[in-house]
Amino acid sequence: MSKVGDEMQAVGMVVEFNPFHNGHAYYVQQAKKQTGADVAVAVMSGNFTQRGEPTIVDKWERTRAALANGVDLVVELPLYFACQPAHRFAAGALALLDQLQVPTVAFGAEHPQWDFKKFVRLAADFDQAALKQYNATYATQFNDQLAQQTGVSLKAPNDILAFAYNKAVLDHHYQMQLVPIQRVGSNYHDQVITGRIASASAIREAVDQHASFAEAVPGEMGAALRQLVSVPAWDDLYPLLRNQLIQAPLESLRQTYQMAEGLEFRLKAAAQQALGFDQFIHAIKTKRYTYAHLIRLCLYTTLQLTEEELAWHAAHPYIHILGFNRRGQEYLHQVKKQVNIPLFTKVSQQMRDHLYNVDYRAGKLYQTFTPVEQDLKHAPVIWQ
Amino acid sequence: MSKVGDEMQAVGMVVEFNPFHNGHAYYVQQAKKQTGADVAVAVMSGNFTQRGEPTIVDKWERTRAALANGVDLVVELPLYFACQPAHRFAAGALALLDQLQVPTVAFGAEHPQWDFKKFVRLAADFDQAALKQYNATYATQFNDQLAQQTGVSLKAPNDILAFAYNKAVLDHHYQMQLVPIQRVGSNYHDQVITGRIASASAIREAVDQHASFAEAVPGEMGAALRQLVSVPAWDDLYPLLRNQLIQAPLESLRQTYQMAEGLEFRLKAAAQQALGFDQFIHAIKTKRYTYAHLIRLCLYTTLQLTEEELAWHAAHPYIHILGFNRRGQEYLHQVKKQVNIPLFTKVSQQMRDHLYNVDYRAGKLYQTFTPVEQDLKHAPVIWQ
Repeated sequence: MSKVGDEMQAVGMVVEFNPFHNGHAYYVQQAKKQTGADVAVAVMSGNFTQRGEPTIVDKWERTRAALANGVDLVVELPLYFACQPAHRFAAGALALLDQLQVPTVAFGAEHPQWDFKKFVRLAADFDQAALKQYNATYATQFNDQLAQQTGVSLKAPNDILAFAYNKAVLDHHYQMQLVPIQRVGSNYHDQVITGRIASASAIREAVDQHASFAEAVPGEMGAALRQLVSVPAWDDLYPLLRNQLIQAPLESLRQTYQMAEGLEFRLKAAAQQALGFDQFIHAIKTKRYTYAHLIRLCLYTTLQLTEEELAWHAAHPYIHILGFNRRGQEYLHQVKKQVNIPLFTKVSQQMRDHLYNVDYRAGKLYQTFTPVEQDLKHAPVIWQ
Repeated sequence: MSKVGDEMQAVGMVVEFNPFHNGHAYYVQQAKKQTGADVAVAVMSGNFTQRGEPTIVDKWERTRAALANGVDLVVELPLYFACQPAHRFAAGALALLDQLQVPTVAFGAEHPQWDFKKFVRLAADFDQAALKQYNATYATQFNDQLAQQTGVSLKAPNDILAFAYNKAVLDHHYQMQLVPIQRVGSNYHDQVITGRIASASAIREAVDQHASFAEAVPGEMGAALRQLVSVPAWDDLYPLLRNQLIQAPLESLRQTYQMAEGLEFRLKAAAQQALGFDQFIHAIKTKRYTYAHLIRLCLYTTLQLTEEELAWHAAHPYIHILGFNRRGQEYLHQVKKQVNIPLFTKVSQQMRDHLYNVDYRAGKLYQTFTPVEQDLKHAPVIWQ
């Protein structure tokens, strides 16, 4: 990679770091090495994951661990991009990296050798009406068609994201280069820790079971995880969701983002009976929707997030800086004049009530699990 | 009291029984004795008190204790009458007793000798615009004017209700006779149990402190109170209220019943900060509103009860039978043809979704404290 004068070159990453583990540290190192970048910029989900689950520790702890392990700048992926199917998640994240003038984005993939660009071009000819539904039925149809034409099965979560990044770049004509990195050491769905490299879900499970996890995470993250009394989970948010489903009239529930095709009846009915979240989510599951889709819908409902509100926010993106080290700060200084959306390090009362309102509300919801004020006037993490 | 043929004569009572105690048993006995009635009909608050607080045990346990101690028929005072200032509470309850053809209503009063009818006539000349606000400022003005003209201070809670019963009878031209009974043994606000007759609040305090309360309550109520792990309180409902105040937009909160004059801003702002209910309620308190008014507003907000919805329900009253003994059942049989509002013993799915919806939702909220389904298909208590 060539450098223009004294300008630093950045590599971008789209991450959840839930929690930050040794595999992530390796990925950050590889991203910098393979691209020759001076600075690593991570766009990270806030306090809720793509699946709509509360993160194991808050965004500030995850930012700290990332900065301690090779990331130079962490910005928040707003909830209305973060808690979305892969294509929206990817498009939202790349829009922010594009604003931050990042020329290269590195990402883990189960099959980095695949020609994702070609898949995207092929998919353009698939049934576009079905695609708009983004549901489980569509995903199956899409995969069947792709398998027929290419012989590959696009089912591993990071491969699906790789496809989505490529699609976002083509759709929006971004200039950025995409660099897939082979995932190592463990599968996403592995449920036990077998060495220094373990999956995030195996680590979460170990924390939940009070089993050993120290070898799989850097010290900074280990310290934060050891503070946990219990792993944040939907069970503790369910009373809030349930009350909303019971008290709100159907015509309000119907306004909820992604509350399609009479789902409000199904959710309201299930809430009357189900005393716990597991029972509830099983009661509402159908073949048509994935669990991830339904858990996100639970989050939107608890946040009273409407279709209209989400559309407004998606059209008014911003860059909320969660933390940086000296290099990250210099990079920010280098690019900030070219950023033409709001960029800020502290959430003011005015932002809380307007631009940042959805993430603020999500932060308050997350405070079910922590006494730490998540946003209002929270200073960014400054790593020495 | 004369009897017409074989017809039973009833005495009505308006009660909370929170919990049912020996003073209530005495009052039931006196009501029957002083009126010569064959049957005692109690209109009882459901799972929330007039102040908007969850009751110490549910309406079914309180019905059981009442039937075991001289009451023959218990009907539920719907929430939109029960959780209201005295004049609405009283008017709603008397409307049901009027439907049930009750010719006499007995009630405890701190000053049964007062001429409450005269007070009502005098009050008709007080400032009616101020009266419509039903707030703390009005109550003070009202009392000042009444004290000036009569020399009495209408401040004891049962005297205030006595006034309200008299006003309801005059306003609606009910034929019923009102019989005040001297309250005995303890003051409403007494905080310790000093004998067989104790105040309900002293008993709740004793239960909360795991102190002895057995001598002050009949056996049936004692058994229910001993089952309690903790006393139901707003602290446990506050997370639901708080989430509603944080997530709902101001324009929704503004629709809440009694959310007057910008209170929605005040409540939303307080919810951002206050981690517990005590802190919250102190933060929103002003001279203008009593604590009772504000706690009721918290309940309406948590139930998402709108002005419009309340008006509809207040115009569509019903009689939900909570329990009866043989005499109560015979009395029901005697009067039911003259009842011209819906009368039912079991809440059907259809009622849950329409006529009974507000009380159903309040029941689900109350289930924060108990696993017992409060309403749907719940059979009435039948006392042998």
